[in-house]
Amino acid sequence: MARKSQGGITYPKGFLAGGIFSGIKSNGKPDLALIVSEVEAVAAGLFTVNRIKAAPVVLSQRRIRSGSARAIIVNSGNANACTGEGGMQDALRITEKVSQFLTCNSRKVLCASTGVIGRPLPVHSILESIPDLVSQVSPFKNLECAKAIMTTDTYPKETNVEIRCGDIPVRIGGIAKGVGMVHPQMATMLAFLTTDADISREALKSALQTAADRNFHTLSVDGETSTNDSVMILANGRAGNQKIQKGSPAYVEFLQALDGVCQKLRDLLLHDGEGASKFIHITVQGARSRTDAKKVASSIARSVLVKTAFFGEDVNWGRIMMAIGNAGVVVREDKIDICVGDVSLVHHGVGMGEAQEEKALEVMKGKEIHLSVSLGLGPMTAEYWTTDLTYEYVRINAGYKGRT
Amino acid sequence: MARKSQGGITYPKGFLAGGIFSGIKSNGKPDLALIVSEVEAVAAGLFTVNRIKAAPVVLSQRRIRSGSARAIIVNSGNANACTGEGGMQDALRITEKVSQFLTCNSRKVLCASTGVIGRPLPVHSILESIPDLVSQVSPFKNLECAKAIMTTDTYPKETNVEIRCGDIPVRIGGIAKGVGMVHPQMATMLAFLTTDADISREALKSALQTAADRNFHTLSVDGETSTNDSVMILANGRAGNQKIQKGSPAYVEFLQALDGVCQKLRDLLLHDGEGASKFIHITVQGARSRTDAKKVASSIARSVLVKTAFFGEDVNWGRIMMAIGNAGVVVREDKIDICVGDVSLVHHGVGMGEAQEEKALEVMKGKEIHLSVSLGLGPMTAEYWTTDLTYEYVRINAGYKGRT
Repeated sequence: MARKSQGGITYPKGFLAGGIFSGIKSNGKPDLALIVSEVEAVAAGLFTVNRIKAAPVVLSQRRIRSGSARAIIVNSGNANACTGEGGMQDALRITEKVSQFLTCNSRKVLCASTGVIGRPLPVHSILESIPDLVSQVSPFKNLECAKAIMTTDTYPKETNVEIRCGDIPVRIGGIAKGVGMVHPQMATMLAFLTTDADISREALKSALQTAADRNFHTLSVDGETSTNDSVMILANGRAGNQKIQKGSPAYVEFLQALDGVCQKLRDLLLHDGEGASKFIHITVQGARSRTDAKKVASSIARSVLVKTAFFGEDVNWGRIMMAIGNAGVVVREDKIDICVGDVSLVHHGVGMGEAQEEKALEVMKGKEIHLSVSLGLGPMTAEYWTTDLTYEYVRINAGYKGRT
Repeated sequence: MARKSQGGITYPKGFLAGGIFSGIKSNGKPDLALIVSEVEAVAAGLFTVNRIKAAPVVLSQRRIRSGSARAIIVNSGNANACTGEGGMQDALRITEKVSQFLTCNSRKVLCASTGVIGRPLPVHSILESIPDLVSQVSPFKNLECAKAIMTTDTYPKETNVEIRCGDIPVRIGGIAKGVGMVHPQMATMLAFLTTDADISREALKSALQTAADRNFHTLSVDGETSTNDSVMILANGRAGNQKIQKGSPAYVEFLQALDGVCQKLRDLLLHDGEGASKFIHITVQGARSRTDAKKVASSIARSVLVKTAFFGEDVNWGRIMMAIGNAGVVVREDKIDICVGDVSLVHHGVGMGEAQEEKALEVMKGKEIHLSVSLGLGPMTAEYWTTDLTYEYVRINAGYKGRT
């Protein structure tokens, strides 16, 4: 069989994927995606911390506790959230139908949805499309799969990497969608990861949590956490490596690779941030604790006034000081330093003057801006990524509902 | 002497006020305000909870602990925040100069600043203007005073009320400025209140705290809390009423009147919300505790996605559900009801359908919108006021610094 190049979610051995139109999106674009492991895979997941959880989140969270799964069925265009008991019935019927065609137990089929909240799924149309979708999945349909999970995303997001465990090549792939409502913990972000590594459940869970904390949980577009956020990973062991256990040298290798995949997906999400014109990388150092550092970084990243100032290329460092002071952690004004790019704007809490502000303005004209804050109180650091807040953001979000 | 009509901050007996240009604002508009009580007054204040506090906040917070004051000097156009030791020296010199002309101890002069953060005050120009300002204060310069504390405000904000304590008329007056960065606890909001009531310090503090909690602390324009927020009240006893003690019937009367004054000022602030096109009154009921109710109301009021949906007249109640779920309190999806105006949109967590959404759309076309959420879990309620998020908001905030 002639092998086309494959990547993304089907880059690891033994994974198939696909994506089709199933009647959800009014514009006829792909809206139903399926990821299948040829064999039962070790599974782990992270889900929204919003108290209102969509039916597919509740169902997947419950099923993933068993520690293994065969497939993930994902629809876009409709969140199946706030849909009551009917929404859960729909999720159950869809996963049941997938399991029939894969001849596995329906509890081994995970699911996710993204899109408008509060509308019943067109479940009959989806059920009718499933045979077609299952028959189409292949190792070469990774891009179709990545496209079928998009909502307001302007491009599909996929990546993959290969490492060696001993002498054995091990692969990791991933897809994501996000754009709006992106915020730690995860907001309307879906990410699906696959690996052919042989790895223990404990090690897989731990690596996923760490990689998500470092990447997806350091990204804020509009400070919201949705009803549907889900990150899931399947590990099917087809690489044939010696099983990776938590804490081993191979685990460290695996974690680093997974971190790289999540980092790439995070960057793709950030750069597709709704209406964004600038991308801001915030580092906070000199904090007493990592929690303090994260709170300060998050407060800056979420500040509407900071984000509009970046859009306006306005060297308004007072707003950054204000956001630091609002973080809910102990800071000392006379210890705070702020740099934009490598231009020092504030030293020990006091502005460096207009000449420095002129230099900072040049940095702020760029598209990728590094904002660095030092609290001067300790050794701990944190990073965050955010976007500016633009007219375009308001335009998009003032009329989202019609644009699924 | 012919009495012109007087109101606002000089409505109570024995208060004088004024406002002039002192060289801070580049557009030559009034930027220095003074409020004077003819006799030493009982004083109470509430100040920003931001960890970074402007010099005038630090100084006033310290001085108000003595429980009394003669005057409040306020400048607009420059926040005197993040100005280091020099900023504190400037605040000391300004209040010192005012005290010389009033022949009182400088510790009896309170102060406040609002405007751009991180610029040194033009202190010489301000000091030179003080003799002129002190010579001008009168019972009829209330509006000049209200104007001189404005920054991006489009109109001055003042109000007053008269009540009776026994048979004695007692008056309360107030001015405020706000617009941007308005958020509990208080953001770049300044409010100054005066009363001729004879009232104990304890009663005055308690009444101020209660009235601020009910009004200023239920207002969110952009979710930020500034370095400069201050609310201060002076009570000079010139009404000659029997001294009001906490818990007495007269206290209840006084509190109700102060509440009314603060409510009026809050409404004036809300309706001048930066770039706002709609004003949203949020009520949350059915909460287990008042804290829970406030957290849910605040989460909705702060949600950028909810605020853009109101701007777009988009009946996107899913975003309201999401904000409820993000409030950090225990909620039950299947107990939640949402109404816009008197149109029921969500009942027991499930949408009421497109016909109701059509009706809600008519409500959302209005300028004043009431959003009511019931959590169905208990008896407690809370209210919040917010604005929509518009292109105009982004435009204003992307280039604030040049427009003092």
